[in-house]
Amino acid sequence: MTPEEARAAFPVLRRLAYLNAGSEGPLARPTLDAMAAAQAEDADLGRGSTAYVERLLALRERVRAQVGRLLGVGAERVALTGSTSDSVRIVVAGLRIGPGDEVVTTATEHFSLVGVLHASGASVRAVPVLGRSTEDALDALVAAVTPRTRLLALQHVSWMTGQIFPVEELKAATGLPVLVDGAQSAGAIPVDASRYDFYTASLQKWSCGPDGTGALVVADPEGLPVAAPGHLAKRRFDPDGRFEPKEGAPRFDWGWLGTPTLAGLEAALAFHPDWRYARAAEMTTRCRELLGARFELLGEPGHGTLVTIRPRGDSGELVARALEHGVVIRDIPETGLVRVSCGYWTSDGDLERLEEALRR
Amino acid sequence: MTPEEARAAFPVLRRLAYLNAGSEGPLARPTLDAMAAAQAEDADLGRGSTAYVERLLALRERVRAQVGRLLGVGAERVALTGSTSDSVRIVVAGLRIGPGDEVVTTATEHFSLVGVLHASGASVRAVPVLGRSTEDALDALVAAVTPRTRLLALQHVSWMTGQIFPVEELKAATGLPVLVDGAQSAGAIPVDASRYDFYTASLQKWSCGPDGTGALVVADPEGLPVAAPGHLAKRRFDPDGRFEPKEGAPRFDWGWLGTPTLAGLEAALAFHPDWRYARAAEMTTRCRELLGARFELLGEPGHGTLVTIRPRGDSGELVARALEHGVVIRDIPETGLVRVSCGYWTSDGDLERLEEALRR
Repeated sequence: MTPEEARAAFPVLRRLAYLNAGSEGPLARPTLDAMAAAQAEDADLGRGSTAYVERLLALRERVRAQVGRLLGVGAERVALTGSTSDSVRIVVAGLRIGPGDEVVTTATEHFSLVGVLHASGASVRAVPVLGRSTEDALDALVAAVTPRTRLLALQHVSWMTGQIFPVEELKAATGLPVLVDGAQSAGAIPVDASRYDFYTASLQKWSCGPDGTGALVVADPEGLPVAAPGHLAKRRFDPDGRFEPKEGAPRFDWGWLGTPTLAGLEAALAFHPDWRYARAAEMTTRCRELLGARFELLGEPGHGTLVTIRPRGDSGELVARALEHGVVIRDIPETGLVRVSCGYWTSDGDLERLEEALRR
Repeated sequence: MTPEEARAAFPVLRRLAYLNAGSEGPLARPTLDAMAAAQAEDADLGRGSTAYVERLLALRERVRAQVGRLLGVGAERVALTGSTSDSVRIVVAGLRIGPGDEVVTTATEHFSLVGVLHASGASVRAVPVLGRSTEDALDALVAAVTPRTRLLALQHVSWMTGQIFPVEELKAATGLPVLVDGAQSAGAIPVDASRYDFYTASLQKWSCGPDGTGALVVADPEGLPVAAPGHLAKRRFDPDGRFEPKEGAPRFDWGWLGTPTLAGLEAALAFHPDWRYARAAEMTTRCRELLGARFELLGEPGHGTLVTIRPRGDSGELVARALEHGVVIRDIPETGLVRVSCGYWTSDGDLERLEEALRR
């Protein structure tokens, strides 16, 4: 599959310079076809027979294995969830983090992570890292750790700037449990989640999956209590709710994913070419070069697949104007920043349209 | 719309006697069309522009208002969730129920409720009610309350037998917070959720919505802490995760529902005819009469829309044999029971096919 062939599979790219996979990725034709076929089957055969449930559960296990391959771990360490929020909830509730505990994070996290941390009742130490080098960020984060720190929780790749955070070094330096928010890394850059205690993925973004698809990798599933089990967590249960959990991370499976969602996710995960990461990095570099000539760039080259600029005027207006010219990008609320997401499907033509739209 | 016209809208009813809406409802053609149209729009225009987000959020509010009308409350008291489990998690975590607390429930709840209760660390008093009259069940539940009881949590309609539980009387008798699991009531029988502290709905069942659609009604949204906020819970937030929640129950919105799901749910909720409840009750009565002639029936007439029998042989085998004859019903694990779900779309022909399949 050439870049042109891959690109041709995404209907949205026919008319738009779609540069916001950091919010939600483009949907490929095979993904859409798989969803439609599964939906038609559900409509005709119903969603309530044992045959349906068997089909759904088999599909679920195939997807689990695919997600494991994406993240460098076995299926037995993968839980399927609906979002990053869900994945974070599993960890925070499982560790019973609450009042009296401290959690160390950065001051530029997504609400999906930091909102759950705060609402646990723990004290959240949010360390400013925007504009700091990776080394400086590491030092500042390690310095924020105290004897009451129970968890380090932060993004692998900053959703604001694309900067890669020193998540592995943090673990080595502190020995504390590390929860990595992989929303902007999984599917965008190579990820080996086996190095972390907990790693989340948001599969509707860089993996181009259907809405509401997430995952959580748990290094030691038996070591984390199931604090708020979903329907699929159990092998069997007693009338008072005591239950025997499934083996491994499937015990953390969080919600119901219907067959259209699972079939679409299976097709989406199978679609991506081997050269995805190299090509996405290449297009990110080109985007930085193009925009760097006229805008202040945040972050450093050679990190994630996001390119963030600080325009002179109003960032929201700039994004709206770009959309009028067929270019989809986003602003980061309350920062004045504008973010561009580059995927392996991004073309030089997309970047030229972007550059032109920002020039107006 | 006549019963015949309504019935013709559900593709699954063309070939199958689909009698398992208690697991997941049949999908109507308008629901399927709305999902396909929204999916096509997302494929063509992307899921990442401000126009997309505005469209999605407007759709979300329309659906919220529809769910409010279904359950007899205003939209400001409705949170949209992905499942009964999600709705229960919001309440149990929000009330900070945990070790040292007691929760009173029945010994025949669904795992989606009782699993979360147990995993909270609270002591779960599971009162046996199967085979008891509604009055006896009320007495037994009230007798289980102690000074440590912080919550009463139980189904409105039993998922095993269709029996209506005395949820309103329980509230009157104890004055304690009551969490009602409406999985087998909302959409099946008339519900006035304004009478309860917390009421859950599972919209893919009797409301025939897309997969992964649930709701939670909260009588006093400002009185329940947001213990594990989703992306959409906030108006704004600080770097350490402190946030200003949205007004009312939308602060409890739990996960991302994509436009296909929301558009399908909107169409599904709009489809049901005025006579839905009367017709479903009528078909349930006919089903009881038909099966009562040959099987032991559980529960009493005049309750929910589920009919449960205790067959002589293996319940799983009976369900499998019925499926071979185009009849979809389910067994209740570890009980030997078989359950039949009757909707307004159920015909005399469906019930005759059922009776014939069970006769073999």
